[in-house]
Amino acid sequence: MRTQVGIVGAGPAGLLLSHLLAQRGISSVVLEKHSRSYVESRVRAGVLEQGTVDTLVEAGAGERLLREGLVHRGIELRYGGAGHRIAFDKLVPGRAITVYGQQEVVKDLIALDPSRVRFEVSGVAVHSLEDSPAITFDGGRVECDFIAGCDGFHGITRPSVPDGVLTTFERAYPFSWLGILARVSPSAEELIYAATPRGFALHSMRSPTISRFYLQVSSADTLESWPADRIWSELRARLETVPGFTLEAGEIIESGITPMRSFVTEPMQYGRLYLAGDAAHIVPPTGAKGLNLAVADVRVLTAALARFYEEGSSDALDAYSADCLQRVWRAQHFSWWMTTLLHTFDTDDPYAQRLQTSYLDYVTSSEAAATTLAENYVGLPYGWGVQ
Amino acid sequence: MRTQVGIVGAGPAGLLLSHLLAQRGISSVVLEKHSRSYVESRVRAGVLEQGTVDTLVEAGAGERLLREGLVHRGIELRYGGAGHRIAFDKLVPGRAITVYGQQEVVKDLIALDPSRVRFEVSGVAVHSLEDSPAITFDGGRVECDFIAGCDGFHGITRPSVPDGVLTTFERAYPFSWLGILARVSPSAEELIYAATPRGFALHSMRSPTISRFYLQVSSADTLESWPADRIWSELRARLETVPGFTLEAGEIIESGITPMRSFVTEPMQYGRLYLAGDAAHIVPPTGAKGLNLAVADVRVLTAALARFYEEGSSDALDAYSADCLQRVWRAQHFSWWMTTLLHTFDTDDPYAQRLQTSYLDYVTSSEAAATTLAENYVGLPYGWGVQ
Repeated sequence: MRTQVGIVGAGPAGLLLSHLLAQRGISSVVLEKHSRSYVESRVRAGVLEQGTVDTLVEAGAGERLLREGLVHRGIELRYGGAGHRIAFDKLVPGRAITVYGQQEVVKDLIALDPSRVRFEVSGVAVHSLEDSPAITFDGGRVECDFIAGCDGFHGITRPSVPDGVLTTFERAYPFSWLGILARVSPSAEELIYAATPRGFALHSMRSPTISRFYLQVSSADTLESWPADRIWSELRARLETVPGFTLEAGEIIESGITPMRSFVTEPMQYGRLYLAGDAAHIVPPTGAKGLNLAVADVRVLTAALARFYEEGSSDALDAYSADCLQRVWRAQHFSWWMTTLLHTFDTDDPYAQRLQTSYLDYVTSSEAAATTLAENYVGLPYGWGVQ
Repeated sequence: MRTQVGIVGAGPAGLLLSHLLAQRGISSVVLEKHSRSYVESRVRAGVLEQGTVDTLVEAGAGERLLREGLVHRGIELRYGGAGHRIAFDKLVPGRAITVYGQQEVVKDLIALDPSRVRFEVSGVAVHSLEDSPAITFDGGRVECDFIAGCDGFHGITRPSVPDGVLTTFERAYPFSWLGILARVSPSAEELIYAATPRGFALHSMRSPTISRFYLQVSSADTLESWPADRIWSELRARLETVPGFTLEAGEIIESGITPMRSFVTEPMQYGRLYLAGDAAHIVPPTGAKGLNLAVADVRVLTAALARFYEEGSSDALDAYSADCLQRVWRAQHFSWWMTTLLHTFDTDDPYAQRLQTSYLDYVTSSEAAATTLAENYVGLPYGWGVQ
């Protein structure tokens, strides 16, 4: 088989890339090791930046998103017995976030044109990245001009780059997030980021009838140590800290523990291989940046490939990594910033605890400081920071 | 001898307090262990917030300050081969800083009325802080209603509080500042905060003919390890990083090494003793907040004492510490923030280095982020954060 762009991985990055390329008349094939039902039900991110929504709409995958996505114009920071709204409508007028599960994005993208995706493909490997790339798999081979590595943090494309080419940057946090989906209406209209001495908690939602919650837990914890009653009692202890707020509990329909860590590889390309999304970088989920960064990478890559095929210039392809990394590092920093602002660290360092409280007081009382949170949360404009 | 307020220490805090009290008809005596010429020549801070200037003018000590002080409407952040101006005139209109040496402030305050200050007083001790306070010294005793501890970090008032009353919060940084005064015109009109892989450097000034410089150095360094030629060559290496900038050298007329550390005591009062300025809290000099915080404390204390003498209410005195601490912790946080943004840390942690560069890129390109720096640097309004 021959195509112009061989794409490894049918997550949001690979699927979106395939559609955006098709819109420009560039052919591609997406190879995915999991089944369609698996990727369509994998619970991941759920907060879409304005630019992500705009991009999905441009790609033709916005119909259900615009109908069912929950548009939020603020979030609440809750600590010290009070809630403080970060009002996007006032601080960054015209920009908002949309709450819509990543698996719904995946479903919508697949439904657009399932014919370009091959599911349950095993033994995928990439070859000849320098000159005439190819992807092989059990029972097949795809010859292509370029390969897009959209196969996530544990994928096979990044490790296929020769040793010594990539530099990696990493940070692990000393805690994890326990996340649950529950069949219960959200207890508040907007997301609540709660910083408490017991640890961080996040009240979120996926729909008017499905709530999403996260708890900061020990890195050593397992799901076995968190039975349902303990989860709800801990969520209440961390969220029922302001007068009049009652947390509604419900059936837990999904749960998981996510380590909190950061990773970046530089550059995000080698020869004719371009890495996008989690294959190139991961962030802790606090800033809700993972999916949004993947979309930003794919936009840059689409434009660069279009330039190559339409104008014969590889300048933009050569600059792909540099163009992406400004935004990647901004998101890394913002994710670190949100994480350190809101989580319980350093319980043996009272000076650090006072600094954290002072910073929360500042962010919730200075319009400039609140704007730094808001503009990063809704997403800086595409092209931000690129010279 | 009897007075209403006995003040220990003739630094800016004690001297200013004495004047502000006198303006309200409240008597005080200032006891200082050093000589007048010593305190008038002690080189310390030199960046005055707008509110500090306004307060000194109100106290009647502003005449020379307004004539000789250098008003600055911006600072430069220099890193990565380029300079970026943080423009106070645009970001926080109407607010500026004034460059004027702390020892000049001390001279002006003493000159207003030297009769209230007793210099070279030895053996100072404070007594009966709970009810009928007194200050004794070699050859004398002052009975008073209240004592103000303005005797700095190493003073005797804070250690006079019984054990267990005060909680202290501390942070030490793994480097120091080498500071020099040099007889040479400043090489730029505004302050330059330079972040380089070699470490931080600050270009500042005291007058049109006297420059002030600081270098981040190892905590283990001594003045002996920094002969003049090494100082100038290191300043050049850290500051001559943008096209067209040449550092002018000159005779070094003063030098010293300052450890970088933070300290706060809570509460800032005990019985009838009130701590102000460095006696209660110190900050690393990066944010230029030490002197300005002392002035803010003194304003709060003056108002509280005036309320007591004019209205008979001790409510404001009881709230003194709480009213000061919001601003104290804001300044602690800002000083930590400026320090971590600009200094070389973690040379073995490339992830942290990338985050630092990303943060600098953000602060110098986002108006909101630049405003957070500007509004803290020129000083948040008095009463900020107090409920």
